[in-house]
Amino acid sequence: MGTTGGPGGRRVGRPRVSQRPDSGLTPRAELLTAAADLFTTRGYAATTTRTIAERAGMRQASMYHYVSGKEELLAELLESTVTPSLTYARGLLADDVTPAEGRLWELCRTDVELLCGGPHNLGGLYLLPEVRAERFAGFHAVRAELKDTYRQLLAATDAGGALAKSELDLRTDLLFGLIEGVILVHRSDPERPVSAFAEATADAALRIAGI
Amino acid sequence: MGTTGGPGGRRVGRPRVSQRPDSGLTPRAELLTAAADLFTTRGYAATTTRTIAERAGMRQASMYHYVSGKEELLAELLESTVTPSLTYARGLLADDVTPAEGRLWELCRTDVELLCGGPHNLGGLYLLPEVRAERFAGFHAVRAELKDTYRQLLAATDAGGALAKSELDLRTDLLFGLIEGVILVHRSDPERPVSAFAEATADAALRIAGI
Repeated sequence: MGTTGGPGGRRVGRPRVSQRPDSGLTPRAELLTAAADLFTTRGYAATTTRTIAERAGMRQASMYHYVSGKEELLAELLESTVTPSLTYARGLLADDVTPAEGRLWELCRTDVELLCGGPHNLGGLYLLPEVRAERFAGFHAVRAELKDTYRQLLAATDAGGALAKSELDLRTDLLFGLIEGVILVHRSDPERPVSAFAEATADAALRIAGI
Repeated sequence: MGTTGGPGGRRVGRPRVSQRPDSGLTPRAELLTAAADLFTTRGYAATTTRTIAERAGMRQASMYHYVSGKEELLAELLESTVTPSLTYARGLLADDVTPAEGRLWELCRTDVELLCGGPHNLGGLYLLPEVRAERFAGFHAVRAELKDTYRQLLAATDAGGALAKSELDLRTDLLFGLIEGVILVHRSDPERPVSAFAEATADAALRIAGI
């Protein structure tokens, strides 16, 4: 992102309060990028809407043309960590040719790549106390549907099909726990190449599932 | 904790600003309990030292007789999530009678019970951006030593002993990722009985390890 132009010495440290950066992003995307960076490095509660607006190169008042506030930005960032996986998972569920074992493995691999692949560790925001609020029901619904897709794919495998419902639910939780647990692993070692790690995690997930 | 006595209508909602609760805890333990509750429900950044002090039944100025501030409380809470497991793990490492497979299983089970067993989901604090700071080096060191104990126990198993170092490190990360991932699973379903879940997670961890 460009940092040229504008007077220096502003409180936030970047000289672009009244000037859009030349990133090519839409104002809304610029706000999301700024929020992702600030929420994951300074923390959600410690970040003000003013700081987000300034980082995105606009005044605070202009920001409200694009978003209702930082809760909306957080909700959209959280949903962006699960929606692509869910779309992919729905396609895998509809595939009645590939064996379920292979489809479950692909879902695990893709999900890990998504969680570890972006420039920000957005999964770290899952544990914010604020995320329990009703405002984030959309995120929780998408995440629950994604988890249910794991359960359905697991149930379609030979090993999963032999399990009682309570045991199937438990294995789904453990499998999904491993996949989301990569958020913590990735946080400890952000430099690890994602691709091989995603495949190893998918292998481990299938071992958990008993496949 | 008792809530009797004291005038009502205070800002924080609990009538004990200048009165210690009759919980039987030391002032420091009272502060830690208050901080654990506030950090996990309202969030770390959103919690003031004043609120912690009032919840613990003392004035803000008195609090500084016992702790240096909320960073110290957070550091101690974080360390409390790993130190008991590390103590237990050191004992397991020194045990040269029980097979390594059984010791690794016991460590997994105990660690999950610890992470899910307390009244607060303190593991959720691991992902706070603030925790990256130098102030929390003690927590990171204890956590790294705990993870290294997992690695050593895994290496002592037949399956782990056959692995190259890079593969052993990766399996350790996945195994430790599953154990810490229970923080997210527990958050989604806090009512689940911990004991059976801890055993199932330990079984799954050994399957990940290839045991």
